[in-house]
Amino acid sequence: MISLPSGFHSHVANIGIKDDTDDFVVVAADRPVPTAAVFTKSRFAGASVTLSRAHVADGTSRAVVVISKNSNVATGQQGIDDAAEVAASVAERLDDDAASVLVTSTGVIGRRYPMERVRAGIAAVPNPLTQTDATRAARGMMTTDTVVKLSEATVDGSAARVVGMAKGVGMIEPDMATHISLLFTDADVSSSVLDAVFRRVVDRTFNCVSIDTDTSTSDSSIVMASGAAGAVDLDAFESALYDVCLDLTKQIARDGEGANSLIEVRVDEALDTAQAKRVAKAIVNSPLVKTAVHGGDPNWGRVAMAIGKCSDDTDIDQERVVIRFGTTEVYPRLLDDRALADLSSYMKSDHVVIHVTLSTGGADATVYGCDLSDTYVRFNADYTT
Amino acid sequence: MISLPSGFHSHVANIGIKDDTDDFVVVAADRPVPTAAVFTKSRFAGASVTLSRAHVADGTSRAVVVISKNSNVATGQQGIDDAAEVAASVAERLDDDAASVLVTSTGVIGRRYPMERVRAGIAAVPNPLTQTDATRAARGMMTTDTVVKLSEATVDGSAARVVGMAKGVGMIEPDMATHISLLFTDADVSSSVLDAVFRRVVDRTFNCVSIDTDTSTSDSSIVMASGAAGAVDLDAFESALYDVCLDLTKQIARDGEGANSLIEVRVDEALDTAQAKRVAKAIVNSPLVKTAVHGGDPNWGRVAMAIGKCSDDTDIDQERVVIRFGTTEVYPRLLDDRALADLSSYMKSDHVVIHVTLSTGGADATVYGCDLSDTYVRFNADYTT
Repeated sequence: MISLPSGFHSHVANIGIKDDTDDFVVVAADRPVPTAAVFTKSRFAGASVTLSRAHVADGTSRAVVVISKNSNVATGQQGIDDAAEVAASVAERLDDDAASVLVTSTGVIGRRYPMERVRAGIAAVPNPLTQTDATRAARGMMTTDTVVKLSEATVDGSAARVVGMAKGVGMIEPDMATHISLLFTDADVSSSVLDAVFRRVVDRTFNCVSIDTDTSTSDSSIVMASGAAGAVDLDAFESALYDVCLDLTKQIARDGEGANSLIEVRVDEALDTAQAKRVAKAIVNSPLVKTAVHGGDPNWGRVAMAIGKCSDDTDIDQERVVIRFGTTEVYPRLLDDRALADLSSYMKSDHVVIHVTLSTGGADATVYGCDLSDTYVRFNADYTT
Repeated sequence: MISLPSGFHSHVANIGIKDDTDDFVVVAADRPVPTAAVFTKSRFAGASVTLSRAHVADGTSRAVVVISKNSNVATGQQGIDDAAEVAASVAERLDDDAASVLVTSTGVIGRRYPMERVRAGIAAVPNPLTQTDATRAARGMMTTDTVVKLSEATVDGSAARVVGMAKGVGMIEPDMATHISLLFTDADVSSSVLDAVFRRVVDRTFNCVSIDTDTSTSDSSIVMASGAAGAVDLDAFESALYDVCLDLTKQIARDGEGANSLIEVRVDEALDTAQAKRVAKAIVNSPLVKTAVHGGDPNWGRVAMAIGKCSDDTDIDQERVVIRFGTTEVYPRLLDDRALADLSSYMKSDHVVIHVTLSTGGADATVYGCDLSDTYVRFNADYTT
């Protein structure tokens, strides 16, 4: 069991949103604390995102609420009113202001919260909160996730810890943060520093994962710092936060709907980081690359195809590109039958690294994704029905 | 049987590229004629594309060669030399210059042509060509296509016809033209007019289809005008060419790998055509929308999600968007259970229309795609192996 950092307590329960598993989570600091958050850029952002974006604008918050298995997205004014009621009611239980509570929610789009059950669930929130089990909180966030996604790190040179939890298996190509990820630390960090550090870290972690190119309407990534463990070295703090976020990123990619393999795409010697990321995303998002990995089909030409899709990058010259799977060069060196058989074996492993050297500059980037399986298709063809 | 327009003859044969089906097609005019062509923008464009782009630069050509089941892509200098040899050898059989012959080729990436068999096949090309069967030529272009894609139209007020043929079932999101499409007409049209008309038509047809977001390294779309039927009204000609290209576009979408349904996405009241196309593509390319159609899952919220992905279109306001399936509004009106059941039935039909009104302006666009099935995944997981 991983516990929350000092200064945080939780309440996790089933309130009957969809079935009898935990679907309601509150994690609260003992007082309003520095908080940073990034949210989806979707034009169909959910009511929770709109509310939380406003409530975190002052750089502090007291608590974050997660309601699972209903996203409260595309539900109109009623959905906005429901989100506001959730924040206000939870705040009342904590003797704090509505504006100090953030709300996140994922699940089916276009259905209203069952508010009677939500109200009953909130009425049962104890004051003060007493639980400290981060594992149970992480489990309470899950919708179709098959494993709990949890990670922790200590901040070098201090007693402070960073604990992170995330959920999300489909509709995952975050454009600011992943589906939902919550980070808690007892390091003492100011709001403005926390915000700057968090944005740098998110850009290199959650914004580098893609499962199916579909960007959620509910993406929210939030970090709260209780300060209970005192001051820390900021580089050590950023390093610990990065480690936790990267670990969660890989856990998300590996648990992609129907996925068997984590696909890691490294692009180096690129013009700039943006080009490296663009090419890497083109590869990790290609359905033909993803199905080839799923089947262990050594059809490396599909990686060449995916690089070629970046047609505005006219500095990319196919004569100077090198493509490797793991450490094995496949292009420009063409493989013989025996090497193709070896490549097929490698592609069936649970962690496939595709490494592309562009020879257009000195920048690099790494992104994470997963294979595309018939299970993904069957699962999503039958999701709400 | 559809025959080629007057002034064209063909030669179709099996030369043993992969199996015993036709894999070698030559269609030639009786003399060099006005020709327009558009090609993939891929940075990994194949040797055939590079060669044909150069050979059509003067606006005329004598013949087009199709070699199927091997794309001659990512094959280095040897691939470039092989493509040049194909053009020169076919030209020799036709008593013409190498620069008058265009070459197109699709199939597996990263394998060289079996040049001994190619040479033998070219040596068997008769002079003059005598076949006129467009259906057999279209069949000779097929790789994993399950149906022949062929269309014809007459040019109003004239004896001229337009005959088009296309191939392509996967790696289809053309960025200039579709996988391979060949159009022939006996209308008398100059090179410069043909080029202008063709680019307008391609932009509204082949550039509006997407099966899997993967852009081929071999996309080539070519139109040749023999002039044998004399002068035509240019508006009538453009209309006939558009009808043929649109028909082929729908045939391609409907025959997408593993697909059961043609998905047509219409976006109207958009700021401009680019925005309409961007939103429509986001919908038609969403794996979650595609799998929902495949399973008849009335999960219309995924269309809202896909619209939301266009996060740079900040003028899109979810409060003013209307989403319909066929003629049935699903948002903002939320559906009751009976209406959801009706929607499920509609989504199982072989032609699903998704109609989105953005209320940001007066422009519109329509794009074409298909559902995503477990068959697509299985097929592409096992393609080369």
